[in-house]
Amino acid sequence: MITMLSDFGSKDSYVAAMKGAIAQIAPGIPTCDLTHEVLPHNILAARFNLLMAYPYFPQGTVHLAVVDPGVGSDRRAIALQSPSGFFVGPDNGLFSGVLEREPALAAVNLTNSAYWRVPSPSATFHGRDIFAPVAAHLATGVPIAEVGDRIDPASLVKPDLPTFSTDILFEGNAKVAHYAGSFQYIDGFGNLITNIPAEAIPEGPWRLILSFTKESSASQTEGKREFAGVNTYGDVPVGAIAALIGSHGWVELACNGGSAAIALQDIAAIGTPVQVICAQII
Amino acid sequence: MITMLSDFGSKDSYVAAMKGAIAQIAPGIPTCDLTHEVLPHNILAARFNLLMAYPYFPQGTVHLAVVDPGVGSDRRAIALQSPSGFFVGPDNGLFSGVLEREPALAAVNLTNSAYWRVPSPSATFHGRDIFAPVAAHLATGVPIAEVGDRIDPASLVKPDLPTFSTDILFEGNAKVAHYAGSFQYIDGFGNLITNIPAEAIPEGPWRLILSFTKESSASQTEGKREFAGVNTYGDVPVGAIAALIGSHGWVELACNGGSAAIALQDIAAIGTPVQVICAQII
Amino acid sequence: MITMLSDFGSKDSYVAAMKGAIAQIAPGIPTCDLTHEVLPHNILAARFNLLMAYPYFPQGTVHLAVVDPGVGSDRRAIALQSPSGFFVGPDNGLFSGVLEREPALAAVNLTNSAYWRVPSPSATFHGRDIFAPVAAHLATGVPIAEVGDRIDPASLVKPDLPTFSTDILFEGNAKVAHYAGSFQYIDGFGNLITNIPAEAIPEGPWRLILSFTKESSASQTEGKREFAGVNTYGDVPVGAIAALIGSHGWVELACNGGSAAIALQDIAAIGTPVQVICAQII
Repeated sequence: MITMLSDFGSKDSYVAAMKGAIAQIAPGIPTCDLTHEVLPHNILAARFNLLMAYPYFPQGTVHLAVVDPGVGSDRRAIALQSPSGFFVGPDNGLFSGVLEREPALAAVNLTNSAYWRVPSPSATFHGRDIFAPVAAHLATGVPIAEVGDRIDPASLVKPDLPTFSTDILFEGNAKVAHYAGSFQYIDGFGNLITNIPAEAIPEGPWRLILSFTKESSASQTEGKREFAGVNTYGDVPVGAIAALIGSHGWVELACNGGSAAIALQDIAAIGTPVQVICAQII
Repeated sequence: MITMLSDFGSKDSYVAAMKGAIAQIAPGIPTCDLTHEVLPHNILAARFNLLMAYPYFPQGTVHLAVVDPGVGSDRRAIALQSPSGFFVGPDNGLFSGVLEREPALAAVNLTNSAYWRVPSPSATFHGRDIFAPVAAHLATGVPIAEVGDRIDPASLVKPDLPTFSTDILFEGNAKVAHYAGSFQYIDGFGNLITNIPAEAIPEGPWRLILSFTKESSASQTEGKREFAGVNTYGDVPVGAIAALIGSHGWVELACNGGSAAIALQDIAAIGTPVQVICAQII
Repeated sequence: MITMLSDFGSKDSYVAAMKGAIAQIAPGIPTCDLTHEVLPHNILAARFNLLMAYPYFPQGTVHLAVVDPGVGSDRRAIALQSPSGFFVGPDNGLFSGVLEREPALAAVNLTNSAYWRVPSPSATFHGRDIFAPVAAHLATGVPIAEVGDRIDPASLVKPDLPTFSTDILFEGNAKVAHYAGSFQYIDGFGNLITNIPAEAIPEGPWRLILSFTKESSASQTEGKREFAGVNTYGDVPVGAIAALIGSHGWVELACNGGSAAIALQDIAAIGTPVQVICAQII
């Protein structure tokens, strides 16, 4: 099975051209779209969407991801093998999230044009001419070492991502965990997804604090908004906003029956700092 | 075969996560998207899109529908078996249109976590963790009685839908059928689709009358617009609006080469009352 | 394999109804979406998207294209066979680009209702009731002569397309090729794609000249903008616009990291005349 992720959109038949190239090499191997609606050239959104979906596919799945602003430049074209499967695309950080979760068993630079669609690929569409054909060959069982030269996985491009930090404080007879992070993605429902992982949140009550700076023509206001941590959308009234553990495995802000991103558009965006505070009685 | 319908949109990889969960359980069973662009939480639009497509699939197809504003609450998760196939999703009225057309041979509450992806599903994504895995198991031949406890099909949630009514009047030497209904859906072409079924319309001339109330800041006007019943779009000039029997089986208003919904945006919306009048000479 | 192209959009389940009709006839034969986001009734955009994708599919693929403003009128429903595969849809020019590239081995008028979904198709959805079923039968190996009456390929509708012209001029010791054409399509990245084919461009430097008329309420200005021909997006700074050979095989204007269509919205649109000038020293 081959999954496909890109910023090609659905208006044109570019994705289909890649699927045709795959069908030529690997007839009968099904493809599955992750999404092709990543904002053009948004590597971090692509990286996030890959993380939201790839863990649910069968072992050995080939994940093809083409968000490739550097196409035709000297950025490397790569394939990786990990315990869960294969990853094919440009070396621009798309797969860095995967490699934080599992080791690279092999990484190669796609130099072997015998596995490309044509020896002289288009300078602007490596998805069709290099990445899709290589993914198709890997899906048919070609060993990864065949499709290129081995490279050191440590040499792969890593994006400069906001981090999150942890502080454990003792307040009276309570041990209180403070996590400081930021919003990393806004999904199609308007959920504001932080980079604070679910595993960090212990049992017991918790809350999320959003720190904002609101700019107007005349002045600049700083402020905070606090949201209770709940279990599911319906735990608050329709129209209310709450924090919860999203299905993707990160803490998010969501609005029951609405869009948290729209409701909070003046004060929350990707990068806005958040704190999650979890109290545990000792 | 498994069809998939949701309000997850195409911006994120949520639908793909469901497809991965299916591929883990039922490798080789193809999936087919009905649509994932249902407006968030719009159960009636999802119900309508299911009715527009499911009759055309092979017998035994599993139809997975996840528009689920009550996810994580105590709404039931269900599977149905009918003569045409299987239906899996939340018990919120999504399948009520199907059950107006054919009987439920079986209905179950999805209580058997052995058929879920994991025993502790996400509180906000039953599509990935419960519904998709159960659909996959049904598609591989697991009997419906295995996946949960039998429930009475009569106990399933029924949405409160506008109805349509029929009057047969004698006017001179003509028998005139009057149907009173309303618009139930607007499709992507801007066709305004009523809830008056094609089967109601006899041979012979007919027309549609739209009754509207137009509000402006100063006043409120009531009015009527009448449209001839025709056979196809091209039976009226480009830009003109006519009534016809839509391919989905309901009477609709359409604009030749344009959008009836845009042309009539001041006076027609979902819920706007319409009358269809069919004259038959006795 | 069956590819599918339409203007049905992704909001409704119309495309799925066609896929269901296919699965009834040809279970196990995979379908691949080219795009369903063609602007309603835009035959030329559909024709272009078909040309961008069909050459990459395996020989024998059935290409189903339904952009059909004349549905229900007396426009013919057709199937073609060419060396690369089969093409099924309305006779309105959708396939004229294919037939400029390869010969029609056979063309038929789809008169044999034995290969339709039902003998009395919907007057407004031949995609589901005629084209998809015929495509499915062709994919299962039914000979094209079975599905209808032979017609002369020369009788097929040809759209009235802008052409491009070539002049070879001698300027000093250089032979200079001048190509005059226009923009034929704007893709989802905002690339402005001309109708000047890549094959026309010889080795060596070249440039594109856009001639525009800018209308404002008070006046009308005529002007020219010139863009260098480059190899890939990154050959110019971020935000700059350059001409290049697009992956689809035509000369295009693109903006590195942005949208040429937006950057040039005042002066460039479909139909705007362009000249490509290629100097070759003799």
